[in-house]
Amino acid sequence: MDKNTFRKHGHEIVDWIADYFESVRHYPVRSRARPGDIMSKLPKEPPAGGEEMEVILKDFRDIILPGMTHWQHPGWFAYFPANNSPASVLGEMLTAGLGAQCMSWETSPAATELEEVVTDWLRQMTGLPAGMKGVIQDTASTATLTALLTAREVSTGYSCNETGLYGFPESREEQEAGTGKATPTGIGNRSGEGTAEGPALRVYASAEAHSSIEKGVRMAGFGRRNLIYIETDENYAMRPDKLEEAIKNDIERGFSPACVIATVGTTSSTAIDPVDEIGAVCKKHGVWLHVDAAMAGTAAILEEKRDLMKGAEYVDSLVFNPHKWMMTNFDCSAYFVRDPALLIKAMSINPEYLKTSKDAQVNNYRDWGIQLGRRFRALKLWFVIRHYGVEGLKEIVRSHIEMARWFASQVSGSDRFELLAPVTTSLVCFRWNDGNTPGKDLDHINRELLKLINETGEVFLTHTLLSGRYTIRLSVGQRTTTMADVERAWEIINQNIKNSLQ
Amino acid sequence: MDKNTFRKHGHEIVDWIADYFESVRHYPVRSRARPGDIMSKLPKEPPAGGEEMEVILKDFRDIILPGMTHWQHPGWFAYFPANNSPASVLGEMLTAGLGAQCMSWETSPAATELEEVVTDWLRQMTGLPAGMKGVIQDTASTATLTALLTAREVSTGYSCNETGLYGFPESREEQEAGTGKATPTGIGNRSGEGTAEGPALRVYASAEAHSSIEKGVRMAGFGRRNLIYIETDENYAMRPDKLEEAIKNDIERGFSPACVIATVGTTSSTAIDPVDEIGAVCKKHGVWLHVDAAMAGTAAILEEKRDLMKGAEYVDSLVFNPHKWMMTNFDCSAYFVRDPALLIKAMSINPEYLKTSKDAQVNNYRDWGIQLGRRFRALKLWFVIRHYGVEGLKEIVRSHIEMARWFASQVSGSDRFELLAPVTTSLVCFRWNDGNTPGKDLDHINRELLKLINETGEVFLTHTLLSGRYTIRLSVGQRTTTMADVERAWEIINQNIKNSLQ
Repeated sequence: MDKNTFRKHGHEIVDWIADYFESVRHYPVRSRARPGDIMSKLPKEPPAGGEEMEVILKDFRDIILPGMTHWQHPGWFAYFPANNSPASVLGEMLTAGLGAQCMSWETSPAATELEEVVTDWLRQMTGLPAGMKGVIQDTASTATLTALLTAREVSTGYSCNETGLYGFPESREEQEAGTGKATPTGIGNRSGEGTAEGPALRVYASAEAHSSIEKGVRMAGFGRRNLIYIETDENYAMRPDKLEEAIKNDIERGFSPACVIATVGTTSSTAIDPVDEIGAVCKKHGVWLHVDAAMAGTAAILEEKRDLMKGAEYVDSLVFNPHKWMMTNFDCSAYFVRDPALLIKAMSINPEYLKTSKDAQVNNYRDWGIQLGRRFRALKLWFVIRHYGVEGLKEIVRSHIEMARWFASQVSGSDRFELLAPVTTSLVCFRWNDGNTPGKDLDHINRELLKLINETGEVFLTHTLLSGRYTIRLSVGQRTTTMADVERAWEIINQNIKNSLQ
Repeated sequence: MDKNTFRKHGHEIVDWIADYFESVRHYPVRSRARPGDIMSKLPKEPPAGGEEMEVILKDFRDIILPGMTHWQHPGWFAYFPANNSPASVLGEMLTAGLGAQCMSWETSPAATELEEVVTDWLRQMTGLPAGMKGVIQDTASTATLTALLTAREVSTGYSCNETGLYGFPESREEQEAGTGKATPTGIGNRSGEGTAEGPALRVYASAEAHSSIEKGVRMAGFGRRNLIYIETDENYAMRPDKLEEAIKNDIERGFSPACVIATVGTTSSTAIDPVDEIGAVCKKHGVWLHVDAAMAGTAAILEEKRDLMKGAEYVDSLVFNPHKWMMTNFDCSAYFVRDPALLIKAMSINPEYLKTSKDAQVNNYRDWGIQLGRRFRALKLWFVIRHYGVEGLKEIVRSHIEMARWFASQVSGSDRFELLAPVTTSLVCFRWNDGNTPGKDLDHINRELLKLINETGEVFLTHTLLSGRYTIRLSVGQRTTTMADVERAWEIINQNIKNSLQ
């Protein structure tokens, strides 16, 4: 593609995106495609010869676009948001154009140093303790897995990396000679040289914790059954007394508590685990404390929400996602640790072909996470924070919280709906219940109601279960959502009750 | 940012990228920044108020750009390439503008279905067996970790996910009652219900395998000492006889072989492990075979290189990176499996809040890898394959191989240089050695030579160790590299010998 052709199509796409930011409101939020619709329009074999960009872009509009679910629609109240913004898109364009792979300082010093600076900006903005260090990861899933792996290594004196989770039946000498026996033995001990003794490691999280925690526990080899779900209180927040009870019981029985994961803003209801009380328990028993603040972490930039980070002085690691609620394109997850040395010791590998003369003086972020290869993600985050300024970001986040509050007040003021969880930030959990329907299946009615609401195409909400009850979630957080959109959502919900009762 | 401001800066950035594609040749390939240079120019605190994009973009040019190492420079001969291309950048722009998070089919049907189609195109293009299914992951690191986790679960009847790598000391009933004892026991067995018996799992890879394999083995909890490095032949390829010997010896001693990782194109020298012979060994002993073809996999699109995929019928999983050598922006890694059901069983978690009514009919790619959140990566790959066509991609890859061959012929024809490994695709491993320097430290001389070459700023080459010898690597693969650039590299190398000998 010659320069002018690239320019022509580049400009065309910029114009299209500019229009899309406005026109997205007129698409159905959730794609109406049925399974196989898109695939049936795509050739099964790759083209032998090159095609013109005009044709490709036409197919994008005609085939792909109708199959998109529009996360940037102002009627997006589903799951959690995945914000983008004009400033962020401009940053992503430059990252794509530069095409740098930023695994090491040397493979782009600016990417590494900008990442160090902007993650420290985030730390200051959210009120995390001075001294905590940040790194950008792709998603909270990988950040949480990283935390679990670090906790696993720290709690076993870094012997798991060396000898595996069940300890190691051979000495190094036996291994080299190929003479050891494979007697199964048990987890690596704390001595650092895995002499094949030591108790099973335990991980604790609230019963409302995100599925990525169970997945991380599995992947890191702890085993799902060593993930102990701690009872929550009536607000769906972890009960620190129950946590301590579980840890004590485990210790008595010979288990080794390795990691507690507290959630600041659960996925189902944005419940806030009491990190300060949980932290005190962790400190007392020497257990790694990881905090999953994927969604709600952003709200800590508000003075009035700073208590979301209460207890941060106890935290060993924490993740929150600027790609959720901080106007930064997916993916951009911020992972903070109190002591990077513990993280690096767990994750680094330094083969000859990656060594550089600067390694001792710089951060090589490939050693701060799972992947070797890294995109230049700090750039878009830098664009976003500078473009909006901290005050500008606060204003948006604050307005979302206000809209959610208004919606919650409508729900609680209505005799046909009820709130099913406290509104801690910008998520409202509710259901239809006129209190006058003995024998009626509320789960069924609300499932039908949600289906009808979403079929309008004007809004998209999703569901969860809270205390076994089918719950509709309205999550406010899309950048361009206005009060009128939330009002319209309330209207749509009310208009559809009648049909959902049939 | 209003629409016109976005358009203005968007057009400006498109024009800048168009210019950059051409002007990148005039930057020093490797940034000349010293540690701290960039950071010292950035404010330590985030701005309270928003800033104009003009200012931000000026800072990008003045502060960030001098700190970039230019992966798209035609003088890029370092590591492996990370291609981009105009078509790919256009695709990335749209992905950024749409801002969709494609974890599930429902969160963007087109993203899922396009991914299914384009990964099948890749399968056909590289000659992988019909029936293998592809998924896009971010990097080969995570794809390899995914393979190791699947192999771990398959080899233990899916009990590790449940009970952990060291088996589980409690029954479910004991766990619920909190009465079990934490007697360390050993790995989960093959019965599926982890009754805490079973031998230690083993993983095998060549001594030249990539560091991400050792890292994956650690992360998945096998323990580094259960990664058995298999001796290579004189071409740095795994010796299948040594592999079989190791597997047999392990079985005799009670270990459980879980996974063999063959490399098609090692990082140090692009050595090609004999997948067919290795596959026969794996089949015989029932061991999962994963192939790391991160770089060289792309070359299999050439008829004359189709033998890179020889033995593919034995392969359980395979990864190669379109983001390396297939003109597609980082990140875009293609992971193929013979039986997706085995993968999904190992990786899926399905909490209520992610369930949709279509789950039984569609692929939810969140269950095909580590992360929950997923970018719409298929779009850029679709743009690239359609824009170039298969023949266009072949032409570029073929030309890189020819340039590498020419360079290798210069080396082998010179009495001052020697080749240190066969040139299997597009990487040349060589060093200065005039054969007439008894007592001279060849490692030192070549280290100095590489330093001087890279200081020119015209080219960037990196190094490795082969049989303990300091080796200079010239990797051809940047999209715009021409024969003249390779000739110039050869010239620069020769010009700098004199100084490196001082």
